[in-house]
Amino acid sequence: MSASIRVFAPATVANVACGFDIFGFALEAPGDEVQARLINSPGVHFKCITGDQQRLSLDPAQNTAGISVLKLLQHLNCQQGIELELHKKMPLGSGLGSSAASAVASVYAANQLLGQPLSTHELLPFAMEGERVACGSAHADNVAPALLGGFVLIRSYTPLDVRRIPCTLDLYCTILHPAIEIRTEMARQLLKSEISMKQHVVQTGNAAGLVLGLIQGQIELIRSCLQDVIVEPIRATLIPGFHAIKQAALRANALGCSISGSGPSIFALSLNLAQAQQIGEAMTAACQEQGMDSHVYISSINHQGPRILS
Amino acid sequence: MSASIRVFAPATVANVACGFDIFGFALEAPGDEVQARLINSPGVHFKCITGDQQRLSLDPAQNTAGISVLKLLQHLNCQQGIELELHKKMPLGSGLGSSAASAVASVYAANQLLGQPLSTHELLPFAMEGERVACGSAHADNVAPALLGGFVLIRSYTPLDVRRIPCTLDLYCTILHPAIEIRTEMARQLLKSEISMKQHVVQTGNAAGLVLGLIQGQIELIRSCLQDVIVEPIRATLIPGFHAIKQAALRANALGCSISGSGPSIFALSLNLAQAQQIGEAMTAACQEQGMDSHVYISSINHQGPRILS
Repeated sequence: MSASIRVFAPATVANVACGFDIFGFALEAPGDEVQARLINSPGVHFKCITGDQQRLSLDPAQNTAGISVLKLLQHLNCQQGIELELHKKMPLGSGLGSSAASAVASVYAANQLLGQPLSTHELLPFAMEGERVACGSAHADNVAPALLGGFVLIRSYTPLDVRRIPCTLDLYCTILHPAIEIRTEMARQLLKSEISMKQHVVQTGNAAGLVLGLIQGQIELIRSCLQDVIVEPIRATLIPGFHAIKQAALRANALGCSISGSGPSIFALSLNLAQAQQIGEAMTAACQEQGMDSHVYISSINHQGPRILS
Repeated sequence: MSASIRVFAPATVANVACGFDIFGFALEAPGDEVQARLINSPGVHFKCITGDQQRLSLDPAQNTAGISVLKLLQHLNCQQGIELELHKKMPLGSGLGSSAASAVASVYAANQLLGQPLSTHELLPFAMEGERVACGSAHADNVAPALLGGFVLIRSYTPLDVRRIPCTLDLYCTILHPAIEIRTEMARQLLKSEISMKQHVVQTGNAAGLVLGLIQGQIELIRSCLQDVIVEPIRATLIPGFHAIKQAALRANALGCSISGSGPSIFALSLNLAQAQQIGEAMTAACQEQGMDSHVYISSINHQGPRILS
C-alpha cells in the first residue's frame, strides 16, 4: 500500500478589523480536509472533490489545492506525483478563507508525504499560488494563519515577511455566515484606491495597538483597537443588516466585530466559550430580523495550523 | 525661602519612520530645563527665558511652557502661581520636539511643587495644550514620549489613548541637525490629504511590525520596519541632500534613518554607542558635501521622561 495521509487545515479570519491585508487568525473549526497519496506518475491528480456542489475544477491547474501542490512538486523537481481527495467542509465564498484552507491542507500533506523537504513556513509561497487561482492575487492573509496558526502579521509582500503575533489570551471567535455569497474580486473592486491621511493615522494607531494588546494580553486595548474606519464602511453595504448584527454582537459583550475577509461572514471575538455562544445567538437573531438565514460557527483560536488526522 | 525645583525634559523623535502621528521616542539629550518656584500670586510668571535668541514670548498665554502650566493651575483651581525660568538647551524648529520638552518640563515641575495632585500620565493633556500654541494642533507624538520616556504609541486622539511600547534592546540614536529651519505648520501643509491604499497597507504592516520587533527585541525586524513610504518622500524635499545623508547612515550600519518629526533633523537608530558615533561622522560628512553645516547629537533612548535636577 502506498503512503497516504489525511490532513485538516483551518478556516481563517483575514483583515481582523484594523489590519486590511496584513492581519489574520486561524480557527479550530470549520476547515477543509485532504486525503493525499504519493503516486508514481508525476503531477497532481484529483481522485475526487466533495462538499463543493460541483463548483471546483478537477483540473489541478485550475484548482487552488491542485496548483499549490503542482508548484511545490515543480520546485522540488519531484519525479513522483500526488493524488488528492479534497473534502470541502466549509462554504465557498464565505470570507473564511475556504481556498486557503484547501491549499494549505494540500501542500502540508504533500510535504509530509515527501519526507518534509521544506519547513512549514517555507510552504507559504506555494499555498499563496493557490490564492492566485482562487481570486486573482497571491494574497497571504488567509494562507499564512491557516499554515502557521494563531494571529499572524503579513509585514510585507516584497519581500514576503510573515510573523506570528504571540497572544497569551485564550480568545474565542463567533462567526456568523449569512446565506449570501460575495466574490472576493468584487469586494476588492468596491474599495477605493485612495484613502484620507486621517483614516490612515486612525487605522495605523489601531493596528499597532492591536499587536501591543495581543502580546500584553490587554483586553480593553484589544477592544479599542478592533475598529475599521477604511474597509468595513464600504463592504458593509454588501451585507444586509450588517450594522444591526454587529451591534447585537457588541451588546452581547464581543471584544469587537467586523467583516471576516471580504465577507459575507462576520466575526466577533470574545473571552470565553459561554460569551461566544451568547454572541452567536444575538447575531443569529439580528440576522433573522433582516429575513436572512445564517449559520454560526464557534471556535477558539487555532494555534497549531494544519493537523494530521491519520 | 519658597519651594523651588529644577527639571529637565528630553528631546524626542516623532513619527519614527513608519508611524506618522502615532509613534515617538525620547532621548537622554538634548533637552530643556525649567526652574520653577511656587508663588503666592495666581497664574504663571516668567522670570526669564534663555537660549531662545529672544524668539519666545514672555507672555505665559503665548508660550508653550506658560500655557501648559496655566491650564494645569486652572484645572486644579489653584490659588497659588508658578514663576518659571525656561532654559532652552536645544534648538527651536529642529524637529526634536523643542516645544514639547519645554511644556513637559514645566508641567512636571509645577505638579511636583503642588505635591503631585496628578500622575505623570495625567499631565499629558496639559502639555499637549502647549503644542497647540506652538504649532496650531494639540498633537501628542513629542509630548507623550517626553513625559513617559521610551517608545510611545499614540493609539488614538479621540479618546486620548497613549501607551508605552516596552523594548528590551538598548538602542542608540544619532541625530543630525542641519543648519536649516522648517516650520512644523509648513511641513504639515506640504502633506497630501489623500494617500493610496497600497501605501497604507505597506505603512501599516511596518508600523505593526515595529511594535512586534521592539517588544521581541528582533533587530532585523526593526530594521525592515523603519521605512516611511508616505511622509518622508514628501518632506525630504525640504532637506537638501537628505537621501545622501540617509544612505551614509545606512552604510554605517544604522537600523534605520528618517526625518525626526517634521524635520529638518534626521535620526538614525543603532545598537551601540560606537555605531552611533560612526553613523554621526558619516552623516556629518554627507551633510558637508551638500555645503550645509550641521550639529550631531548622540544619545541612548531615555526610558524615564523628565528628571528632577535639583
